Amino acid sequence: MSTATPQRTGVVGARVRRHEDDRLLRGLGRFADDVDRLGQVYARMVRSTVAHGAVVGIDTAAARALPGVVAVITGADLGDIPPIPIRLPRGDEPPDCLQRILPDEVRYVGEPVAVVVAEDPYTAEDAAELVTVDYRELPVVVDADGAPPVARLETGYGDVDDAFTTAAHVVEVDVEVGRHAAVPMEPRGLVAEYDPATGRLQVWGATKVPVFNRGVLARMLGMPAEQVRLHAMDAGGGFGARGEFYPEDLLIPWLARRLRRPVKWTEDRAENLVALNHSRQQRHRIAAAFDADARLLALRDEITHDNGAYLRTHGLLVPELTVGMLPGPYRVPAYRAAVDVVLTNKTPCGTYRAPGRYEGTFAREHLLDVAADRIGIDRAEIRRRNLLRPDEIPHVRPLRALGTDVVLDAGDYPALLEAALERTRGWREEVARLRARGRRAGYGFAVFLEKSGLGPHETADVIVEPSGRVRVHSGGTSLGQGIETALAQIAADRLGVDHRQVQVVNGDTDLQPFGLGSWASRSTVLAGNAVDLAATAVLRRAREVAARMLGVAADLLDHVDGGFEVAGRRVALGEIAAACAPGSPHLEPGAEPGLAARRVFEVDHMTYPYGVHVAVVDVDPGTGHVSVPHYLVAYEVGRAINPTLVEGQLVGGVAQGLGGALHENFHYDAQGQPQAVTFVDYLMPTAAEVPGLVDTLITENAPSPDNPLGIKGAGEGGITAAGAALANAVRDALGLPGDVGHLPLSPPWLCTLADSR
Amino acid sequence: MSTATPQRTGVVGARVRRHEDDRLLRGLGRFADDVDRLGQVYARMVRSTVAHGAVVGIDTAAARALPGVVAVITGADLGDIPPIPIRLPRGDEPPDCLQRILPDEVRYVGEPVAVVVAEDPYTAEDAAELVTVDYRELPVVVDADGAPPVARLETGYGDVDDAFTTAAHVVEVDVEVGRHAAVPMEPRGLVAEYDPATGRLQVWGATKVPVFNRGVLARMLGMPAEQVRLHAMDAGGGFGARGEFYPEDLLIPWLARRLRRPVKWTEDRAENLVALNHSRQQRHRIAAAFDADARLLALRDEITHDNGAYLRTHGLLVPELTVGMLPGPYRVPAYRAAVDVVLTNKTPCGTYRAPGRYEGTFAREHLLDVAADRIGIDRAEIRRRNLLRPDEIPHVRPLRALGTDVVLDAGDYPALLEAALERTRGWREEVARLRARGRRAGYGFAVFLEKSGLGPHETADVIVEPSGRVRVHSGGTSLGQGIETALAQIAADRLGVDHRQVQVVNGDTDLQPFGLGSWASRSTVLAGNAVDLAATAVLRRAREVAARMLGVAADLLDHVDGGFEVAGRRVALGEIAAACAPGSPHLEPGAEPGLAARRVFEVDHMTYPYGVHVAVVDVDPGTGHVSVPHYLVAYEVGRAINPTLVEGQLVGGVAQGLGGALHENFHYDAQGQPQAVTFVDYLMPTAAEVPGLVDTLITENAPSPDNPLGIKGAGEGGITAAGAALANAVRDALGLPGDVGHLPLSPPWLCTLADSR
Repeated sequence: MSTATPQRTGVVGARVRRHEDDRLLRGLGRFADDVDRLGQVYARMVRSTVAHGAVVGIDTAAARALPGVVAVITGADLGDIPPIPIRLPRGDEPPDCLQRILPDEVRYVGEPVAVVVAEDPYTAEDAAELVTVDYRELPVVVDADGAPPVARLETGYGDVDDAFTTAAHVVEVDVEVGRHAAVPMEPRGLVAEYDPATGRLQVWGATKVPVFNRGVLARMLGMPAEQVRLHAMDAGGGFGARGEFYPEDLLIPWLARRLRRPVKWTEDRAENLVALNHSRQQRHRIAAAFDADARLLALRDEITHDNGAYLRTHGLLVPELTVGMLPGPYRVPAYRAAVDVVLTNKTPCGTYRAPGRYEGTFAREHLLDVAADRIGIDRAEIRRRNLLRPDEIPHVRPLRALGTDVVLDAGDYPALLEAALERTRGWREEVARLRARGRRAGYGFAVFLEKSGLGPHETADVIVEPSGRVRVHSGGTSLGQGIETALAQIAADRLGVDHRQVQVVNGDTDLQPFGLGSWASRSTVLAGNAVDLAATAVLRRAREVAARMLGVAADLLDHVDGGFEVAGRRVALGEIAAACAPGSPHLEPGAEPGLAARRVFEVDHMTYPYGVHVAVVDVDPGTGHVSVPHYLVAYEVGRAINPTLVEGQLVGGVAQGLGGALHENFHYDAQGQPQAVTFVDYLMPTAAEVPGLVDTLITENAPSPDNPLGIKGAGEGGITAAGAALANAVRDALGLPGDVGHLPLSPPWLCTLADSR
Repeated sequence: MSTATPQRTGVVGARVRRHEDDRLLRGLGRFADDVDRLGQVYARMVRSTVAHGAVVGIDTAAARALPGVVAVITGADLGDIPPIPIRLPRGDEPPDCLQRILPDEVRYVGEPVAVVVAEDPYTAEDAAELVTVDYRELPVVVDADGAPPVARLETGYGDVDDAFTTAAHVVEVDVEVGRHAAVPMEPRGLVAEYDPATGRLQVWGATKVPVFNRGVLARMLGMPAEQVRLHAMDAGGGFGARGEFYPEDLLIPWLARRLRRPVKWTEDRAENLVALNHSRQQRHRIAAAFDADARLLALRDEITHDNGAYLRTHGLLVPELTVGMLPGPYRVPAYRAAVDVVLTNKTPCGTYRAPGRYEGTFAREHLLDVAADRIGIDRAEIRRRNLLRPDEIPHVRPLRALGTDVVLDAGDYPALLEAALERTRGWREEVARLRARGRRAGYGFAVFLEKSGLGPHETADVIVEPSGRVRVHSGGTSLGQGIETALAQIAADRLGVDHRQVQVVNGDTDLQPFGLGSWASRSTVLAGNAVDLAATAVLRRAREVAARMLGVAADLLDHVDGGFEVAGRRVALGEIAAACAPGSPHLEPGAEPGLAARRVFEVDHMTYPYGVHVAVVDVDPGTGHVSVPHYLVAYEVGRAINPTLVEGQLVGGVAQGLGGALHENFHYDAQGQPQAVTFVDYLMPTAAEVPGLVDTLITENAPSPDNPLGIKGAGEGGITAAGAALANAVRDALGLPGDVGHLPLSPPWLCTLADSR
């Protein structure tokens, strides 16, 4: 891969207004529930009311008898449908842990056991309540601790035991991250329509990895993949959870094909809270060994990962990422980590923004604060001594993450830490002033490593029209992150045209059948570089044709403002596109007509951005309320295509990270009944809880050498260290000698901690 | 252009069942009126009730007041919309003859003057009747004869006057072809929808030249072409008329964009008969000069062409084709023809299956029969002496047709005549027997030249899927002719796969933005050869990748049954497609992923099929009824991709040609009021009028050297000589010394002719 970053003076790096806003701010966005097809019927899931049970019988008679009911489908109707496969399999996943569709044994409350279809959604919901399911209840596992694991992942390098034996200081903490989840503003929704004339099946709604899901759906239905067309829609939040393949993603298309009518399904909030992937729930018994100078000798972690009832599409990804990324930006001479993956009778878990890193960063950074205090050195100083220096990078770490070798590609971690500390110097003084007035204020920070730009490849088309407008068919999907704008900027920059002339179309599997989707902070890196390659190929072709049009050698032409010029004569890109049409004298015989290119960007390694979170908290020990008056995310992004979009990602991430750190928790009773099934019980942060102004410090000092644009992903850096920084700030505020025990730092727990001091 | 026709043993030439029938026979075809969009409203045209008048005022108040009416639009609302352009301009068209949209001066009964849009079609129709248009009536021209022409086309070569001066025999007739038209079973329909979020406009319905119409619509609306997507639908008959750009093709999309609601319009039969292009109406004063051996010395024709009120999209095409093709398959040493193109206050005319050739073949072949009788030689013999012999072909004729030089490419005209005469020897005997029993039976035939395969180019995509299925995005459109089947056969033959694995998708301007459409018997020739080129390119690429997969040199591979083999090892086409996906080790870095190609077939000249029509008639001189017990079309097609489809084209053409010869006639009163406005007045042939069995003799003796597949088009040969053969048979039956005067040979006219004898 070339590392030459061509000089640009264009729109890459500019704060251009989001293209998406043209529709979203005018109410013209199209979300899943905005899709309606003529003659559609409405599906409603019948969901398990028990956490573990054998389905002994399903009585659908009363539901079928309700006027307006079109069909009631149970597992017996489905026939032999394979389980939902793992999207990124490692190969060592335990057998029989995959989720089946409408199984005869349910394993969590909320699991679909039947589907009702009716002429209107109200009838469907009423009829679903008339379906009687007879269960023989089975033993329920709610607590992962002590339960037998279905898989154990072990990784590491170096002589950890020796390091711990000879260490000057050993520090250990035992901390847990609660069960929380993406909870996007928009619940899921699907519309499926089958055309018996063409045998084609269209599905609207799931936005993340439409091409992959197309393949899964086609295989599960026994159809050729190209006969299935998925349309990603606008999405009210993705965060890793939306757009994965769920039971409904099979059921709704299956019904449309069976019933020969379009079928629509819109998830309600109560369903969403038990049906969409949960995440995060882990216990870390993490320990560090230091020499006398507080330099790390080794790190070890024994982790219990509660994955809920099944391995869904993410398989063992979150545990793998947890241990693969745990050493973070530090020099860790020896490392050993093990994760016990336990299945429990709770909603299955998958990835959620910064999966594994939110958990691991919390464990590691909280450990470092405790260690600094125990050793008696400054909390920043312990990090300064252990962060990898620029001269140690690239740093090859004998670990795997997302199936790739961990090679930390570029960075100056200590410098960014200093910058963040310097930027927040006043906050430390403010904390001191608050404390002097008797307030339980605290300052906490955490350094983190992110990963982004997962390959192996992404594909993009760039098409220039005779009008001069440019279309991009990208493999990314629009999850609200502004990818259409970023890709338009990249294409415009390369082609030298106004970015508003570039229209990016995402998530249509017919238009871009090779797209790998938007996840793992990969879109801007992968799709962006694919767009750049395709635009470069288009430009090369345009130069050839322009040379023919102007009757000069191609290398005499100057590329100026989206056209080619020589000696005062000029052809614009649109004119060149017109000259590539069939019948043009400038099109060589046998040549492919049109001015367009489809190109693949391939990359073996991820690129590793990094950052620092700094939080100021003000704890009310009476109520347990934690207010967060100040928050900073410092983040090295390699190259910001659009700084406003990067800021948006970071600030939004903080809000979500704060929720998991302080409020959100899916808790269950001993029978596996979920206790947080509405927003009254599941506490999302509101504007009152989130800092009014999240400060950001975006640096572009360490472009990635692994992609021509030098980009690093920015989708997750706003959340990764939020649990860590807030826990460290709370610990600082309360003056805890040990760790905070677990997240979320909910008011009751805060009161307990405050009292324990 | 290579003339090598590769040897094939595949499916080209086989009578495979039509792919289209899978949907059409199951009622799954989708015609214009089958399209419905959510929230659509319905348009109804307000049409002129006078043949020529200035629109003094339009009172829309009552219509607007009707509940359910959404909008009433007049010309004043439209603003500055340009007139409908000519699709194939010659450059010498008279100015100011183009049709404008909702003009302030109407020129024929049925011309749109306003549009009403309502929530349902019934309200729209009721409201349209409430619109009051105040006209100041202007002088009406109904009869083209004697009216001043707007254009005069003159063509020819050689010294015609000298030939006529020195001729042994000069024969002249003065004949007319009546005004008739395509009258497809399915009236037109359009649905348009505008998406303000993307700025894209979609239009469903017009099936013929969607890419061209997209450009016209975009220009008229001031939009970039790529923001308009046209979807051709299944069509209940095209025949040249359906799918051209009419006022409604602007109005319905304009309304959808203006109203921000989908707009649907379905033409009713009464509208169709005054709104869709008429055709054919010409008067020929045609004369031939012969030497003493009845060899042609010269041909001359003075033609009056009644084009109705405007030059629509076909401009001067029909007159040009008339004079360009008039010499037909004969050796004509000198030729002069002139057409006066006259505008009259009647429905505008355009092409209708075999435009110009139906008229010219009738004039010429009728003249030859009269001449043979006058000179006193056999009607077949006069043709034998004058038909071009194989050794005279290719024959370059200094004429132009459809903007191309006339080069008769391949053929043995006399041989086909003999074959047709031989095949119908029994019919002549039967006629003699009938006459012996007192019946007015007649035998008539006519030799004709067709043209097909008009360039300049056509584009096709061939895409192989990992499933092994093949998709073809063709520039042709499905007008019922079976083009999907023919193209699937061509692709399957080249790729070596089962033709049922090939899915042809036509008429979507997004999928094939370079398609030139289906008209002028060009699709199989142009699109077929484009598909063959694209399939060849795909195969070449497949061989390269297969070689990489198998680790051998590409030229060692054998292409067998849709795969490549070497030494007992084999990779199928689908496997090769999978190996072309991004990330495949077999895909070269930087290469375009996928196994697909878009290719252009270019051709300068048309290819000229030819044929013979033979008819037996049995005339009832009392009622004027002409029954047609026998009919033969002999036709040289170069190469029949699917003989069943060719037969279908020929037989269907005969039915239409018979209608125009015997029954159909759009007649007007002196005020320009159309007198044939229902099927009670406009007499379409029914099963009772059409021969129960139309015989066909399809030969493949003269493949075209101008395209690799050797194809000649077969869309029009079934109609071209129908007027001529039937007129000749009737003349034979009645024993007329002169000509039949005019078509149609309607019962009253037949009675007149019978009495005149």
